[in-house]
Amino acid sequence: MRGWLAIAGLGPGSEALVTPEVTAALAEATDVVGYIPYVARVARREGLTLHASDNRVELDRAAHALAMAAAGRRVVVVSSGDPGVFAMASAVFEAVEAGPEPWRDLDIRVLPGISAMLAAAARAGAPLGHDFCAINLSDNLKPWALVEKRLRLAVEADFAMAFYNPRSKARPEGFARALGVLRDACGDDRPVIFARAVTTPEEAIRVVPLPEARPEMADMRTLVIVGSSLTRIIARDGAPIVYTPRSAPE
Amino acid sequence: MRGWLAIAGLGPGSEALVTPEVTAALAEATDVVGYIPYVARVARREGLTLHASDNRVELDRAAHALAMAAAGRRVVVVSSGDPGVFAMASAVFEAVEAGPEPWRDLDIRVLPGISAMLAAAARAGAPLGHDFCAINLSDNLKPWALVEKRLRLAVEADFAMAFYNPRSKARPEGFARALGVLRDACGDDRPVIFARAVTTPEEAIRVVPLPEARPEMADMRTLVIVGSSLTRIIARDGAPIVYTPRSAPE
Repeated sequence: MRGWLAIAGLGPGSEALVTPEVTAALAEATDVVGYIPYVARVARREGLTLHASDNRVELDRAAHALAMAAAGRRVVVVSSGDPGVFAMASAVFEAVEAGPEPWRDLDIRVLPGISAMLAAAARAGAPLGHDFCAINLSDNLKPWALVEKRLRLAVEADFAMAFYNPRSKARPEGFARALGVLRDACGDDRPVIFARAVTTPEEAIRVVPLPEARPEMADMRTLVIVGSSLTRIIARDGAPIVYTPRSAPE
Repeated sequence: MRGWLAIAGLGPGSEALVTPEVTAALAEATDVVGYIPYVARVARREGLTLHASDNRVELDRAAHALAMAAAGRRVVVVSSGDPGVFAMASAVFEAVEAGPEPWRDLDIRVLPGISAMLAAAARAGAPLGHDFCAINLSDNLKPWALVEKRLRLAVEADFAMAFYNPRSKARPEGFARALGVLRDACGDDRPVIFARAVTTPEEAIRVVPLPEARPEMADMRTLVIVGSSLTRIIARDGAPIVYTPRSAPE
């Protein structure tokens, strides 16, 4: 039997946002590999082995999945959101590049998912409707100086910005520094969206002007979006609509 | 009957990438509104009226959809990819802001979809696996000087870059200028991915080093991704894998 490896995105949380492609791959799989809370989203069934592992062991997990596929298993590595955005796809390819030569010729597919950024934007309106960037604020894997440099350049480019991993338990001070850089660089009251646990029962969306944004408004389950200088707010009875127009003036 | 408006993303082309949430909204709709080729993807059925319109009438289309929802219809505005990324969601909210006051209190939801950028990245490997930006290269709605400024700042920030609308029939010269700016600013042979008609029967993926990228490699159905300075290529018998590692060195 020829094995394969699918690196699949489960979307932000709601089952209504899991693509049929991912559902079909899970139905054919012999093994599912991933971080504990994501594997917990996969229904148990006979013939399917679930391999849940802790955070921060991405390369070990990737190598384990590749070794199983090389041995003829049908393996799905699960990420939340999209696997190609700050998730398992890069980790698997890092393991492929560092691993034994035959791993390169395995049947490996990446199955996209609804990223947290797109789901959060949809809940708030359309804050990413014009040019934007996505930055992982964690400095686990890159120096803080690079995070700060990117923040300043993103403001200069007037991108809307989506921030992943704004606030880890291990390094809560990073997000406070990021907000400081943004306040310094933007100099205005553009909207900040805190989108927590989007599309789950714990979903909470909060929109505040940048001067009022506080580090404790984000936790590990929060995706943060900061508007560009052109981002607009439509006030109404319910939650406001936040959107960035399609055009920029001459 | 209370009407509603859903702004839905149909994904890049394959039906296997349409979310169950979008499928459910289409099943409940009385009216579907959108650009001709996207409306053509919706199955006809009794009780459903399809309103297909030409390109570049986004605001008229949005106002029409809002007026129908205000009149009690259940309306789905369809975009390809994700509606919040260079698509109809911002157009609808522009129309809401400019329109009659009661439109603000309509039941309006944005239903995210798999964006072309995520689908293209998945096909190539994981080129957007680290910090990245998304830029609409069309200068229909913004001055070319702003496009060029953003390209130079994105290179300075060392973002991977996803480009929407690289080459329109009306302004084919824009993409040639963009490639010139990138060659000048990058000064290396980082990979460029041309992903045409991703997940459709006409799909074609091509990876070339930046110095070999030519404007005619893109058309209106092409999504272009340019790697960061850290993006890597894994050579193998089939198409190469292009990915950006999760970490950046000190």
